[in-house]
Amino acid sequence: MMHLARLDEPLRLELGGTLEQPEIAYHTFGTLNAEGSNVVWVCHALTANSDVADWWPHTVEEAGFLDPSRWFVVCANVLGSCYGTTGPLSLNPATGEPYYESFPRLTMRDVVEAHRRLAGHLGIGHIHAVVGASVGGFQAIEWAVAEPQRFSRLALIATAPKASPWAIAIDETQRMAIFADSTYGEHRPDAGAAGLAAARALGLLTYRGPEGYNLSQQNHADAACVLPGLPSQHRACTYQRHQGDKLIRRFNAYSYVAILDTFDTHDVGRGRGGVEAALASLGSEGLDTMVVGLSTDLIFTPAEMRQLAAMIPGSKFAEISSPLGHDGFLVEYQQLNKLLIPFMEWKK
Amino acid sequence: MMHLARLDEPLRLELGGTLEQPEIAYHTFGTLNAEGSNVVWVCHALTANSDVADWWPHTVEEAGFLDPSRWFVVCANVLGSCYGTTGPLSLNPATGEPYYESFPRLTMRDVVEAHRRLAGHLGIGHIHAVVGASVGGFQAIEWAVAEPQRFSRLALIATAPKASPWAIAIDETQRMAIFADSTYGEHRPDAGAAGLAAARALGLLTYRGPEGYNLSQQNHADAACVLPGLPSQHRACTYQRHQGDKLIRRFNAYSYVAILDTFDTHDVGRGRGGVEAALASLGSEGLDTMVVGLSTDLIFTPAEMRQLAAMIPGSKFAEISSPLGHDGFLVEYQQLNKLLIPFMEWKK
Repeated sequence: MMHLARLDEPLRLELGGTLEQPEIAYHTFGTLNAEGSNVVWVCHALTANSDVADWWPHTVEEAGFLDPSRWFVVCANVLGSCYGTTGPLSLNPATGEPYYESFPRLTMRDVVEAHRRLAGHLGIGHIHAVVGASVGGFQAIEWAVAEPQRFSRLALIATAPKASPWAIAIDETQRMAIFADSTYGEHRPDAGAAGLAAARALGLLTYRGPEGYNLSQQNHADAACVLPGLPSQHRACTYQRHQGDKLIRRFNAYSYVAILDTFDTHDVGRGRGGVEAALASLGSEGLDTMVVGLSTDLIFTPAEMRQLAAMIPGSKFAEISSPLGHDGFLVEYQQLNKLLIPFMEWKK
Repeated sequence: MMHLARLDEPLRLELGGTLEQPEIAYHTFGTLNAEGSNVVWVCHALTANSDVADWWPHTVEEAGFLDPSRWFVVCANVLGSCYGTTGPLSLNPATGEPYYESFPRLTMRDVVEAHRRLAGHLGIGHIHAVVGASVGGFQAIEWAVAEPQRFSRLALIATAPKASPWAIAIDETQRMAIFADSTYGEHRPDAGAAGLAAARALGLLTYRGPEGYNLSQQNHADAACVLPGLPSQHRACTYQRHQGDKLIRRFNAYSYVAILDTFDTHDVGRGRGGVEAALASLGSEGLDTMVVGLSTDLIFTPAEMRQLAAMIPGSKFAEISSPLGHDGFLVEYQQLNKLLIPFMEWKK
């Protein structure tokens, strides 16, 4: 069940501007124990929401690493999103109208600051584990670097300490697609929808990669007799359009652009002497880190994941074998559970 | 120097429709020998033109595999393009206006038929070698399967016998970006330009891949002090926009969509009992084939290139080591020359 917290204090943003009393939507699963020692904070990715049990199948269950009979699992919808937390479609208290493109620009540190405020609001001090995959990992690593003593476990899955040029180029191309839609900028929730659909279709390419598409999107045998015809009859074409259509029914271009900003400005080393110095601080006594890569991830490549692990003192590294690219983190729950269930308890 | 040939006979197209007396732009380099035995036909890729010496550096020169003192090199601009050959911006003789979106849909077989007509026009019978990389390879393999006895050598670089679901999904996403630009469909050459720029930026992602971007698009050291700021200040962002801008100054969205059609309908096995049966026909006595893959090619992966070679009886396979992804075929001329100079002469 989704809850809503209204933060009492204004949130001053890293790039300037303030959100007055922003609202944060969140889910919890399980029960906080008397010692407050069983909190697991999950950070969600780009267009997901706070309902982990919905978007991360077979994790929030008895056989999963987020077993709600054992852990008190918290997940908050990120700032700028549209699943209950304040974002571009929220009313700007100064005008009484939705922000749309006037929503202030966010960084990952703003997103993490909102998480911290929510934790305070919920009376949560120590957090046993913070877990994030993809952009969720950006939040987890940023939060852990900001407050390493707060956590006992840090699980980083298919993610990075800093946005790479490759990932930033993907995001810029998504922005170009959105901005190519001249309805972007109009003051309605579906402004830029066709551009957003194209951006999402591009996202899917990078989430799945060649192997993923070639395994799942071959034309059905009986389509061979249809071709040659309109290329749009290819299964891979209808899939791309379907993915675009699905997103624009549940998301909006303004939130998408806001969250891309947090992605591209992500750099745990900013103001901390660089990435390596920042990550070295994660080697403190009480914090155990596990880094998990995916064998065919196109966005956060196995080589980069190994580099990340090498920069975090004492961290464990594991690679999940999957043909599904970056999206493997949502699908390969058996391998994830096998890795993370012991890690959650693991002592050095 | 570019030449122009006007075909005398109407070109009936595979998907229906006819082009009356289409014009074909072409370049030649070197001199046709008296025996007519030194013809090398080069097929160009997506947005290139007939000037091989311009887009494929260090190949049309004495130390290159297209040495014009040895070979008579021919390259024709493909149907549907905008570098002299009839395409969507050409005048429709029936209306006296440019075709724009009413240009008939093309397949790779139409493109090859135009090449064949041009060869006839030039008095070229036997062709010593046909060479194609990327979509140029689509033409080369289609032509070789259609007339295997016409060629002595077939060089296929970073290409495929049939468009894969992955490649088709990339193309569909490019179309989604173009169609998201509501100016597409307007009757002017720059209609859909913003969408085309986004499509090109997406193309670049797939041509270069993670390693290519992370090698070349790191922020300059002094940019660190600029960030956090607008994500658009990232070098990777300005690069994507620059690549989009560059293309829309030299190409148009109608031609781009027309050529994507030829890409997505490409299937040498259509009407020939499937890809394997079609490729088996390349195993005839007089034809030697070399297949060249690129180690980090995201579009035509090394595994797929090896599969292609395995399906062509007696073919040679080589892999070029390059961090530059698919675009490596334009850059790794030293490795290419080393492979292809002996191959051009090679006898079984």
